[in-house]
Amino acid sequence: MPAELEEIFYPKSVAVVGASAETLGYISTILEGKLGDRLFLVNPKYQEFMGKKCYPSLLDIPHPVDYVIVGTPARVVPEVIRDCVKKGVKAVHIYSSGFSEAGEEGARLEREILELARGGRVRIIGPNGMGIYCPEAGLFFANGQPHESGPVGFVSQSGTFAIYSTAAGELAEARFSKVVSYGNAVDLDAPDFVRYLAEDQKTRLLLVYVEGTRRGRELFEALREAASRKPVLVLKGGMTPDGARAASSHTGSLAGSQQIWEAMFRQAGVIPVRSFEEMMDVVRAFLLCPPPRGKRVSMASVSGGVSVVETDACVEMGLQVPTFGEETIRRLKEILPAAGTSLKNPLDVWPAFVSGILPEVLRIALSDDNVDCMILEVQMGAYYRELVMTDEYLRGLAEKCREMQLEFRKPVVISNPPELDWEFAHRVRRIFKEYGLPVYESVRRAAKALHHLHRIFLKYGEEIFPLGRF
Amino acid sequence: MPAELEEIFYPKSVAVVGASAETLGYISTILEGKLGDRLFLVNPKYQEFMGKKCYPSLLDIPHPVDYVIVGTPARVVPEVIRDCVKKGVKAVHIYSSGFSEAGEEGARLEREILELARGGRVRIIGPNGMGIYCPEAGLFFANGQPHESGPVGFVSQSGTFAIYSTAAGELAEARFSKVVSYGNAVDLDAPDFVRYLAEDQKTRLLLVYVEGTRRGRELFEALREAASRKPVLVLKGGMTPDGARAASSHTGSLAGSQQIWEAMFRQAGVIPVRSFEEMMDVVRAFLLCPPPRGKRVSMASVSGGVSVVETDACVEMGLQVPTFGEETIRRLKEILPAAGTSLKNPLDVWPAFVSGILPEVLRIALSDDNVDCMILEVQMGAYYRELVMTDEYLRGLAEKCREMQLEFRKPVVISNPPELDWEFAHRVRRIFKEYGLPVYESVRRAAKALHHLHRIFLKYGEEIFPLGRF
Repeated sequence: MPAELEEIFYPKSVAVVGASAETLGYISTILEGKLGDRLFLVNPKYQEFMGKKCYPSLLDIPHPVDYVIVGTPARVVPEVIRDCVKKGVKAVHIYSSGFSEAGEEGARLEREILELARGGRVRIIGPNGMGIYCPEAGLFFANGQPHESGPVGFVSQSGTFAIYSTAAGELAEARFSKVVSYGNAVDLDAPDFVRYLAEDQKTRLLLVYVEGTRRGRELFEALREAASRKPVLVLKGGMTPDGARAASSHTGSLAGSQQIWEAMFRQAGVIPVRSFEEMMDVVRAFLLCPPPRGKRVSMASVSGGVSVVETDACVEMGLQVPTFGEETIRRLKEILPAAGTSLKNPLDVWPAFVSGILPEVLRIALSDDNVDCMILEVQMGAYYRELVMTDEYLRGLAEKCREMQLEFRKPVVISNPPELDWEFAHRVRRIFKEYGLPVYESVRRAAKALHHLHRIFLKYGEEIFPLGRF
Repeated sequence: MPAELEEIFYPKSVAVVGASAETLGYISTILEGKLGDRLFLVNPKYQEFMGKKCYPSLLDIPHPVDYVIVGTPARVVPEVIRDCVKKGVKAVHIYSSGFSEAGEEGARLEREILELARGGRVRIIGPNGMGIYCPEAGLFFANGQPHESGPVGFVSQSGTFAIYSTAAGELAEARFSKVVSYGNAVDLDAPDFVRYLAEDQKTRLLLVYVEGTRRGRELFEALREAASRKPVLVLKGGMTPDGARAASSHTGSLAGSQQIWEAMFRQAGVIPVRSFEEMMDVVRAFLLCPPPRGKRVSMASVSGGVSVVETDACVEMGLQVPTFGEETIRRLKEILPAAGTSLKNPLDVWPAFVSGILPEVLRIALSDDNVDCMILEVQMGAYYRELVMTDEYLRGLAEKCREMQLEFRKPVVISNPPELDWEFAHRVRRIFKEYGLPVYESVRRAAKALHHLHRIFLKYGEEIFPLGRF
């Protein structure tokens, strides 16, 4: 199976059938990709589309075609599949909706296309899904998806999460090897894609979003096999009874009981997450940080109250906030006044924020043998924020944080809750991102990501982490 | 006690001793307040400060003084207290630090001032705290604090949280009757302030941040008494062992065991929260929404996958996501296409977002008898975001949401995760805020706030909610 899927993820030639502005807004990104004259457009209505020749049908293309993307209305799809069989196409991705999710007539159509495809050994992705994102092969499914590859793979039953994951926005710092959104899964389904990405050398971290599957046993085995090789994060939609009902409306999936899924994930050795944000929080830290070799974090903030509450948050998310060694406290005392600060960890170091010796303070803390990682909360009252936290200050701080992270090979992550001042939070986010550090909206989220990262380190070792290797 | 504290929160005249740029940056806000010529500044170094006459000492002020704010170095404070006693001052807030939190010499000073004050019946707030915010009385402790009052009171052991709560930023939509930051609590402590705000007619919702207290039994009784009259949200810092250690460094508090505090909160009938953000999330919804009469939410988003996962989040936060009644589904079918949507709740209504009939869809859902409240997630892929979600579109949507909320007397809250696009998220936030609707960074946070609001409704009824009454 993986060999067969390799041909699908890296097709030598691709045709888009039903190329039009309405049905395939994303052709523009494919056109910018590396397919070049191995991409063919099909639409009997046009001579050309977006400056490229349009063929009346698949069979008119004077070259072999490996992979076909179909965006025509559902009722035309069987005809297209017949052409695919004649043309010797290896796989067809049916983007079109209007199949089993839309009622009995759609379900009949779905059975028909499956029968036609099986007769000609054409594999189907979809219908009613976004298909494949594989920038290396020139395959894209949304406007503005990045052309750069990364070490993360994503098998998603939801088209939206598939698009969001590579969105040209804040999340796009996450770079993907492959993303697949497989919709109604009449033929290829989650277990097939998980098996393929388990073996894919380009994929170091595997994400899975699943609502349900008709092939539960196979999915379990595919996940277990994948998790034996690389970290697998699984977001299961429809864990609660109300959510399961929603899943059944969405993809017609039988979501099953929460207990069964949880037991299955435990036995398969995957890491369950509870939200898309939690999943992407891990991706961000995985890509940008060295592994935390333990779960002992140093927490630093401008305030005693904040540091107390955020210490609780770290512990609740599975980390520890130990006291520093004596030598560390001695060194901190040399450069910090006693009043208004706490030097034991968490660091409550208002004066260091204001005087600009913060990088030095963090460096001493991070060098402590009791510390495996650091969360720095960058948040201040309006008065000092404007006075102290200029772009220059933040750039200097970000640069030092990045340097320390690489020198000590310990993750340094930033928390920056937007509640007090969105403009400021966004500025902080932009600058730290520029210097390659992950920024979170809360210490709680940062701590959870570090906790997952530590689990990944324990099971897969330092070598799985891409930092400095990609 | 409450009568005595009334005089402290509403002093007839106030003096600031040690008025200077360094020690009391916040005098500017007090100067803008309503104290007028009932505010006196004291500093032997200046003839005047910020355009106002400076007296060499308290005793030189030719008028009675009720309330004194002290910002001098710690060693001078005993002398000031002696003057307070002679002058017949009712209360003194000692902003200065350098007392028991700073070592043995500070602790000795602290004992000295307490003895002096008790001899003259002067009550002390602090030392080492921000003191009182009471805009009605002209008392402020940070630059840019709002002059408008609101129905929320806050007793905070942390100065930072006290400042953050009224910060002139995103959180300032929360309006407060009184905020007190009481620092080392040598005299007046949490139980005193909780008792006062329990009786305060201007305070409908009471927030408490506490790390520890020397008067645990009294605090319990004060909280129980307060909770019998109005909702009380309590954030306890130092619940975990590491957090408790941090608390002991911060305020010298014995944080005690998590089990004991949790049992205490249960018996007192207060609502425990786990973070400052969670507390402020409740404040936002409490101020802007009618009460949810039940916990059945209608969830609406642009995507099936999102709606499934967010339904799980709602249920995990204590809400239910029931199916609509038949009549609702019939009405929705009349205006929405079947393909690509789910009409049963959660609403997965991509076409409604794009075509602009979203307000009508939400209106039908909100009018359903099975629905007590609504969470609308405003999030879209970049392509449609730019094409569809113009400011005009968002304003129209926000206005309709506000109208519906008031017409049906059911809360409508917005979720808008910033991950995809911070600029867009901020725009959404600004516009919905302008129309008086609470905006959250995730459905999880919105759902938790609604869950707390429902608990408040069950115990205190509709009358406690300020919407339309303030």
